[in-house]
Amino acid sequence: MRNIALVIGYDGTGYYGFQTQPGGNTVQDHLEAAIRLLTGETVKLHGSGRTDAGVHARAQVAHFHTESTIPVERWSIALNTRLPNDIVVYEAREMPLDFHARRSAKLKTYRYVIQNSKFPDLFYTRTRFHDHRKLDTAAMKEALTYIKGTHDFTSFCTVRCDKDSRVRTIYDADLLVLHDPLPGDELARSIHFEITGNGFLYNMVRIMAGTLIQIGQGKRRPEDMKRILEAKNRRLAGPTAEAHGLTLWRVEYD
Amino acid sequence: MRNIALVIGYDGTGYYGFQTQPGGNTVQDHLEAAIRLLTGETVKLHGSGRTDAGVHARAQVAHFHTESTIPVERWSIALNTRLPNDIVVYEAREMPLDFHARRSAKLKTYRYVIQNSKFPDLFYTRTRFHDHRKLDTAAMKEALTYIKGTHDFTSFCTVRCDKDSRVRTIYDADLLVLHDPLPGDELARSIHFEITGNGFLYNMVRIMAGTLIQIGQGKRRPEDMKRILEAKNRRLAGPTAEAHGLTLWRVEYD
Repeated sequence: MRNIALVIGYDGTGYYGFQTQPGGNTVQDHLEAAIRLLTGETVKLHGSGRTDAGVHARAQVAHFHTESTIPVERWSIALNTRLPNDIVVYEAREMPLDFHARRSAKLKTYRYVIQNSKFPDLFYTRTRFHDHRKLDTAAMKEALTYIKGTHDFTSFCTVRCDKDSRVRTIYDADLLVLHDPLPGDELARSIHFEITGNGFLYNMVRIMAGTLIQIGQGKRRPEDMKRILEAKNRRLAGPTAEAHGLTLWRVEYD
Repeated sequence: MRNIALVIGYDGTGYYGFQTQPGGNTVQDHLEAAIRLLTGETVKLHGSGRTDAGVHARAQVAHFHTESTIPVERWSIALNTRLPNDIVVYEAREMPLDFHARRSAKLKTYRYVIQNSKFPDLFYTRTRFHDHRKLDTAAMKEALTYIKGTHDFTSFCTVRCDKDSRVRTIYDADLLVLHDPLPGDELARSIHFEITGNGFLYNMVRIMAGTLIQIGQGKRRPEDMKRILEAKNRRLAGPTAEAHGLTLWRVEYD
């Protein structure tokens, strides 16, 4: 028995999220099918976490147990030839048997990207949320100072949230603004909201992004982020931002 | 009668090129249909040049004559709501009646992008040609020094080339290498071949890119570029590189 960990990227546009669903067509389904084609084995893949329908991953991690003797350096090429083009296995590693992609994860980083320009940049329509109003990035940056640290994030969890504890630690939350001129729009730019924590509740990054966008639009003030957090009430936060702007950027282990 | 110039971007993946073809589904067809929906007029759009099936544009320019009185600042929004998502009109300007998108053009710039990494970067599969072999970018840069200036580019024109003169002037030809790490591939990078000239023959940039890639792979030497150019023989140059790596970057006028 071997324990293989995969580092996987996917364009989530066409999938119902990472994790197997009754309706099918998830990233996990395609990966398990590719492993079955390659080895003849029916394995159960365990991801570091689910990602919603339409959300992307630059480096999702998942593990599975196998009796296969295929050398570890062959797995990525062998699986990529059996996967759709919008799912890529970048790397495979043999891990100790007790390694678990979700339970062993120490840090996760997500990015939410906003295309802030008159018109969408058409080469990024799949991975960036477009807002044509000039966003106040200084206010957005200020708002992020309130979410760093250890907090109860109930306000930023969908009402269907079923976790016992909604306390998580955010180690880093930052905004990177890239000047990215488009024809006829010298001021076009992209705003990259990057957040690293020890775990995230369901929809947490998207609700934060939705709240941040409202702060950028001047509909809320930066200090509202603190008030929302303290209230532990989902209704006070902004809307859940659209899925396609979100990418699971990396997962870190010891 | 007014003369309107549009600055247009498109993801060429799903189209049979810019210019109207008997088979339909070209970018020009969609633009003319959007103008017809908006104004009721059937106009003939003139692009700065054709782009092949699968080739993209960041800033194609096209003009048309119209009796419409729609203010010039309204055209882009009005057309974008009537266009598919992968075609964007970034800007519209009213021009003198003698302005012609092709005949008035002074400079054109194209970019050919190579994703040089173990596996494709899945967020750029539509716009970058993937090569997993480590390319020798110093040799590629040296090769480009030979194509700057005024030359007869017969060797870099498809054999179906029907132009009287194959002499063109290349003002700039450069290679930009961006370090762009992927999971499991710290050395991943993208190679951007950018070329500016007073005009380009049919398939010229793609044949140059195909030749450059062979030089990067070590199959040819940088000096071969000079020899190929002087021979005025298409058969001596490399293959026509795949269309999807190519983007019409900008068109400049006086």
